[in-house]
Amino acid sequence: MYNFRFSIPTTIYFGKGQISHLSELAKYGSKALLVYGGGSIKRNGIYDTAMKILGDAGVRVTELSGVEPNPRIETVRKGVQLCKTQSIDMVLAIGGGSTIDCAKVVAAGALYEGDAWDLVIDPVKITKALPIFSVLTLSATGSEMDAFAVISDMTKNEKWGTAGDALKPTMSVLDPTYTFSVSKKQTAAGTADMMSHTFESYFTKEPGCDVQARFAEGLLKTMIKYGPIALAEPDNYDARANLMWAASHAINGLIADGSKPAWCVHPMEHELSAFYDITHGEGLAILTPVWMEFVLKKDPSTAVNFAVYGRNVWGISGDDDMEIAEEAIDRTRKFFTESMGLPANLRAVGIHSDEHFKVMAEKATKGSAGFFVPLTSADVVEIYKAAF
Amino acid sequence: MYNFRFSIPTTIYFGKGQISHLSELAKYGSKALLVYGGGSIKRNGIYDTAMKILGDAGVRVTELSGVEPNPRIETVRKGVQLCKTQSIDMVLAIGGGSTIDCAKVVAAGALYEGDAWDLVIDPVKITKALPIFSVLTLSATGSEMDAFAVISDMTKNEKWGTAGDALKPTMSVLDPTYTFSVSKKQTAAGTADMMSHTFESYFTKEPGCDVQARFAEGLLKTMIKYGPIALAEPDNYDARANLMWAASHAINGLIADGSKPAWCVHPMEHELSAFYDITHGEGLAILTPVWMEFVLKKDPSTAVNFAVYGRNVWGISGDDDMEIAEEAIDRTRKFFTESMGLPANLRAVGIHSDEHFKVMAEKATKGSAGFFVPLTSADVVEIYKAAF
Repeated sequence: MYNFRFSIPTTIYFGKGQISHLSELAKYGSKALLVYGGGSIKRNGIYDTAMKILGDAGVRVTELSGVEPNPRIETVRKGVQLCKTQSIDMVLAIGGGSTIDCAKVVAAGALYEGDAWDLVIDPVKITKALPIFSVLTLSATGSEMDAFAVISDMTKNEKWGTAGDALKPTMSVLDPTYTFSVSKKQTAAGTADMMSHTFESYFTKEPGCDVQARFAEGLLKTMIKYGPIALAEPDNYDARANLMWAASHAINGLIADGSKPAWCVHPMEHELSAFYDITHGEGLAILTPVWMEFVLKKDPSTAVNFAVYGRNVWGISGDDDMEIAEEAIDRTRKFFTESMGLPANLRAVGIHSDEHFKVMAEKATKGSAGFFVPLTSADVVEIYKAAF
Repeated sequence: MYNFRFSIPTTIYFGKGQISHLSELAKYGSKALLVYGGGSIKRNGIYDTAMKILGDAGVRVTELSGVEPNPRIETVRKGVQLCKTQSIDMVLAIGGGSTIDCAKVVAAGALYEGDAWDLVIDPVKITKALPIFSVLTLSATGSEMDAFAVISDMTKNEKWGTAGDALKPTMSVLDPTYTFSVSKKQTAAGTADMMSHTFESYFTKEPGCDVQARFAEGLLKTMIKYGPIALAEPDNYDARANLMWAASHAINGLIADGSKPAWCVHPMEHELSAFYDITHGEGLAILTPVWMEFVLKKDPSTAVNFAVYGRNVWGISGDDDMEIAEEAIDRTRKFFTESMGLPANLRAVGIHSDEHFKVMAEKATKGSAGFFVPLTSADVVEIYKAAF
């Protein structure tokens, strides 16, 4: 187990009706920037509820709406401009991970003199931010409780993740009933996203990270149990609650700190989204089993890791690590495609040419070469091709 | 899953050499009260290291030493007096749970006008505290990362747990090498304590707490794996590190929030310690299997809970819940007595009479009647007798 610093400063209010705690924003100032997406929060009433609570608490609101599914730097810049010109005290995101990611970089950009894109490509420049709050409406990215944000500049086909302690929200409201209306497609993609976050930390060669590994297995078992239930019964509270809480813990440091993961599948998927604007979780579901097969073949010593995964998460019994490893990967693929209805390959999400694979692979390996099994850009091209 | 508020504000520096971060105390003021126990930190060098780091950082130190294994209110009062008369800015505990518990109530007492015992018997009175820091030297209570403190008034045979957000440490240093010198007896007792914390949250009838339950199972598996290794190889880093990190998570809210546990075995043990001053973890190891047997008999519907425990933690297979439940309890007892060398009954820790059982049981059920299976004071007398 590596040395680490553990810090989860975000207070979570979890459960039905917890949005009432937005009144606590008044402790942080009198002017909030409200960040949201396409307006679904107006249709389902969350917007009105939040505005009433904030109004009663004496918090005035400036709005930044229309945040995109892969949030754009142009929207971030617009938010930063609002903060700077209107003396905003805090930023409140209501939405999913994209909205929260956008709000985070807006909050940091508000206290930064240069262009906000600097903060995306150079996390070191993130030293402070306005207080960040969120009301979560989609279980997936874990942005509600972590240090990360992913922002795109589609004019350059760039999509980068940034991070900073200052980006950790001060408080997030997690009300599982707000996810009852999430579509099957987004529910499935969100589940693939949280599972991928877990895999990125879980597959490590660092020995002695039992606490982290057993936690990761607990999260995976919970996601595998409740993902299909949430698809079949969108208003099943236990399913939505467990997916929501599991997603937050998948990336808040709990399973990563000490095991020193170097993200691998996420950087590969970011290139898919940057070039083709596909749904992030769908790209992850396509790439993950292919990546598993590739690294198992490239480094057969990883059979022991995949066998532990097979035994502890899928309950596969037997003595042959390689056999269990292969079955575990097979079950992972079938879970995504058969149980969750996710696309099986890149053609299924509209990618019909391999023309960008080489440049995408080069960028993906720049983002992270992978620590579990290091990958060259030629390896990544092979993975893209196998996923085609 | 119940509604809950989740908050773990404590920053953890985990790993070898992390004590260097004590320099950060300078951000919180210039005068610290250093709280420690019997002086082992002077023999093993931690005292000198800490004093050097604090001195270099410009933090002056006042000392409160001699904190007892079951810390006494008299010592707390002495610390409060030092804080009030010497304008102390913060409290730093170096030691195990008893030392940290004492430091916590000192820190709250320093900002409280009345007698510190008020804060022990009425947690509502804990509204603020001086910043609390700790360097942990014993893996057991989880006090380094939680809201709790247990203080005794032996003149009244009283031992009570109190709690408050203000008691959560600001920062704790967890260096597993500091536990290499912990005796076999204390290593075993500490492991029993962290397992009991986990059980208190894990055994609940609240449905749909999968994240919490799977995390709890991960902690228990880690403790069961590494407890005996730490006994056999006291300087095994992975064993000490995993026990240390598991103990912190067993009681920081991670597995309790949402499952609404009402502590049961701990209040029973507190009476044993209050009347006989025995080692807390030994009392827990004695009472836990007896409590499990008692509640399984009183409410056979709990067989399903104990069977889940048996399957997921001990890997017991089979279809008959009651059989698996009974075997799981049997394995728990054998783990404590055979694998960890803990005492099997109350006589083994010097309790040779049942004269106080009735009054102890009345106090224990006042502390908590138990939520998983409610217990009367007559039930608790039976448990004490069965443990005799």
